[in-house]
Amino acid sequence: MRMDVPTARRLFTAARVARLATADADGVPHVVPVTFAVDGDDVVWAVDAKPKTTTALRRLRNIAARPTVSLLVDHYAEDWSTLWWVRADGHATIGDPATDAAAVAALVAKYPQYGTTPPSGPVVRVRIRTWRGWSATDPPEPPGPARRP
Amino acid sequence: MRMDVPTARRLFTAARVARLATADADGVPHVVPVTFAVDGDDVVWAVDAKPKTTTALRRLRNIAARPTVSLLVDHYAEDWSTLWWVRADGHATIGDPATDAAAVAALVAKYPQYGTTPPSGPVVRVRIRTWRGWSATDPPEPPGPARRP
Repeated sequence: MRMDVPTARRLFTAARVARLATADADGVPHVVPVTFAVDGDDVVWAVDAKPKTTTALRRLRNIAARPTVSLLVDHYAEDWSTLWWVRADGHATIGDPATDAAAVAALVAKYPQYGTTPPSGPVVRVRIRTWRGWSATDPPEPPGPARRP
Repeated sequence: MRMDVPTARRLFTAARVARLATADADGVPHVVPVTFAVDGDDVVWAVDAKPKTTTALRRLRNIAARPTVSLLVDHYAEDWSTLWWVRADGHATIGDPATDAAAVAALVAKYPQYGTTPPSGPVVRVRIRTWRGWSATDPPEPPGPARRP
């Protein structure tokens, strides 16, 4: 069943990992996992300090060529009646940690793993145009205080 | 660190869900979760009997327009030293359950959930051209008999 947008945003925001799909100049798709944070109407992620050739990362080259991207969060379980997913489609812009401190702050606030080494590579901000969610049955409730019957 | 191809194939094959990235005729990327099986050098998945407008599914329209696809399996955990992912890129062709019984059999063998209702919609076979994997540290061992020290 289709999910309402507030529920889709809530589930997406709470997830710990998303998958980012981009396409290159020839339209060839590419997909990688990303840690991310939701900052207002944007999804932000960054290239961290891991040893890779950051400026040549295919995800960044693709965004430079085609800024339209698609991000997915999904829940898998062997009980297929509990499956759900949320997709966020939008327009990506590449910045850097110095000029987008808000993105870095959102990532550091979400992930204690960034505490000692905040991401220092390019920062990508995706302005989400559509949130779309699907769930096999009722979507999960938000975490919160236990409700009494 | 880069993962060798046999390890990448092994981890991908054992996973229960993958994410499929396609792009439409305009090169706009799209990503959805898929249950899948590995059949020889192909990754196969199918549209099941769930109520959706199967013939109009965007993933199928995209493949008809651009058969190059990218599939991702990834492992997330709060201990980022255990992260890994495997990406399989290839060329997709759309068939149907009657003409690709091997794909349906591979899916049914992997997922008990298909036992009572095998997928009855379009079957997609992706001939994988490249397997690429990354892991933060050593990739996980294959499941098997417990090894004694």
